[in-house]
Amino acid sequence: MTTDRPRLAVTAGDPNGIGPEVALKALRTPAVRAAARCVLLGSAAVVAAQAEALGLGPVRAVMQPDEPVGEGAIPVLDLQPDEAPGFAWGRVTAEGGRQAMRAVEAAVDGCLRGAFDGMVTAPISKEAIQRAGYEFPGHTEFLAERTGAGRFVMLLVSGGLRVALVTIHAPLAAVAGLVTRERVRTTLETADAALRADFGVEAPRLAVLGLNPHAGDGGVIGREEIEVIGPAMDDVRARGLDVHGPFPADGFFGRRADRAFDAVVAMYHDQGLAPFKALAMGAGVNVTGGLPIVRTSPDHGTAFALAGQGAASADSMREAVLLAAQMAARRKGSRA
Amino acid sequence: MTTDRPRLAVTAGDPNGIGPEVALKALRTPAVRAAARCVLLGSAAVVAAQAEALGLGPVRAVMQPDEPVGEGAIPVLDLQPDEAPGFAWGRVTAEGGRQAMRAVEAAVDGCLRGAFDGMVTAPISKEAIQRAGYEFPGHTEFLAERTGAGRFVMLLVSGGLRVALVTIHAPLAAVAGLVTRERVRTTLETADAALRADFGVEAPRLAVLGLNPHAGDGGVIGREEIEVIGPAMDDVRARGLDVHGPFPADGFFGRRADRAFDAVVAMYHDQGLAPFKALAMGAGVNVTGGLPIVRTSPDHGTAFALAGQGAASADSMREAVLLAAQMAARRKGSRA
Repeated sequence: MTTDRPRLAVTAGDPNGIGPEVALKALRTPAVRAAARCVLLGSAAVVAAQAEALGLGPVRAVMQPDEPVGEGAIPVLDLQPDEAPGFAWGRVTAEGGRQAMRAVEAAVDGCLRGAFDGMVTAPISKEAIQRAGYEFPGHTEFLAERTGAGRFVMLLVSGGLRVALVTIHAPLAAVAGLVTRERVRTTLETADAALRADFGVEAPRLAVLGLNPHAGDGGVIGREEIEVIGPAMDDVRARGLDVHGPFPADGFFGRRADRAFDAVVAMYHDQGLAPFKALAMGAGVNVTGGLPIVRTSPDHGTAFALAGQGAASADSMREAVLLAAQMAARRKGSRA
Repeated sequence: MTTDRPRLAVTAGDPNGIGPEVALKALRTPAVRAAARCVLLGSAAVVAAQAEALGLGPVRAVMQPDEPVGEGAIPVLDLQPDEAPGFAWGRVTAEGGRQAMRAVEAAVDGCLRGAFDGMVTAPISKEAIQRAGYEFPGHTEFLAERTGAGRFVMLLVSGGLRVALVTIHAPLAAVAGLVTRERVRTTLETADAALRADFGVEAPRLAVLGLNPHAGDGGVIGREEIEVIGPAMDDVRARGLDVHGPFPADGFFGRRADRAFDAVVAMYHDQGLAPFKALAMGAGVNVTGGLPIVRTSPDHGTAFALAGQGAASADSMREAVLLAAQMAARRKGSRA
């Protein structure tokens, strides 16, 4: 294995969910070991206890990302060496939220100062991190603020299927108001740039979904397609982007029209993610495009109800690490 | 073939779309011929012209539903015998909307007076019917009013996957306001009753999706799950219904949790239909549950861009006729 494999920070996620389990499983796969040098970030005591309980050890606590560990051991950058942190599988706790976010903070700061080439985040609980005092609906918004990114896009990836979102963790009642010409335009531009920078697509072809059922059916079921989305598409066409639509979301996925595009831009969370996950069958990856750093995550949540059983699938987490490694290698290559 | 096969009215849909084509193709399949006695409803002149152009003839104009036609011919109940109706493949016209709706009116009235045991509707264009003066967003709402149904539910069916909608053709901006405790409760009750009456499910197990991303994530991304949907579920539980959730829509379909339920109740159009169609792969059927009559339709639209080429798939239309035949036979059996 070469030493120029990308260095990735992998956060353990909420310790009460399946995050540590799927991270450990993913980091043990030969494909991941061949593709990247990974360090797990979390409470080393908690990760070690879970690794032993689930038969996923050994792990070694390290104080620096590049500290060598024995062959076969997984390094855990210990973020709470002087505390005695605990966990409670299946429960939403402020302590779980705190541990999870300390790892995210350390990972993003390490990426920004060049200690890591990218980061992969295991799931957190939005409720737990809010109990711990973090006022963010999710990783994506936190990372955008912490890295000072003016623009970012949440992108779901499974093979050639890529879905970008104009709005993300907004209550449904707020979605229509948030779908502005400016926001649609920015999402299209950021998605286009991310496809070029991180996926090697030279001339991205983007499909845009409508906001309303049947994409408004000519204005009969809502006018945002005519008054907001269409004009935003015209704006980016004038800047050279190749955009198509707006298409009705249901028929679009029903006939797998996504196969003719490099990415599909959905207007809101469930419109994009429900069909995406139905099609990705458990191996989808969440990418935050437009950040100064590389960041991916699995497309599932903490799955508190499954925690501690050792039965969680690490497929999505493994794909997330492999995709981050590819993206990091591409960025390193383009900098060289 | 027995004469007790159900008698079905099949409307030809918008003559400028693929409706007549998929209806003719479906009615020619051996499975449909064995399952039902079907009459096509539309302009006989238009249907005959299209059948000839597309190589899907012969058809025979009839003036009464039970008028015999020669072996191999498809009977078309002529609704415009004294006019010279036309069509224009691929165009949205008031004339197309008018022809389409006359067939729907004749079908529903025929069902109500017992001339048919059920109806199957080929796609209409909401824009075309509004140009023709019909103020309905779609078939479902029109049929509910015309049959005097106080309650109805739009149900999408593909094998064991069944998705019901709380709101249907509402602009997205209006959805959150329409998801009331009363409407959720009514949808759950109507879906439960339809599963018992039309699908032979003795003790329906219903899954309910949240309105917001991550089903609100404990109230962090919207509170309708806590304040509206949860209480509505409690209401129907008190009446003996077996309801579960509310579940986040994306993860639910991602892990195919639908397989553990008799139906999934989605809060709005794209939340339910985008994953449904992604999974149904072109053979989904739309059922209006809760009407005094049996009504199904294919799950696709007019597909104006495909019209006149002879290349449209009739899979969904065929499944719609077969399901209507099953439902009609079940209702006849329970009346006997």
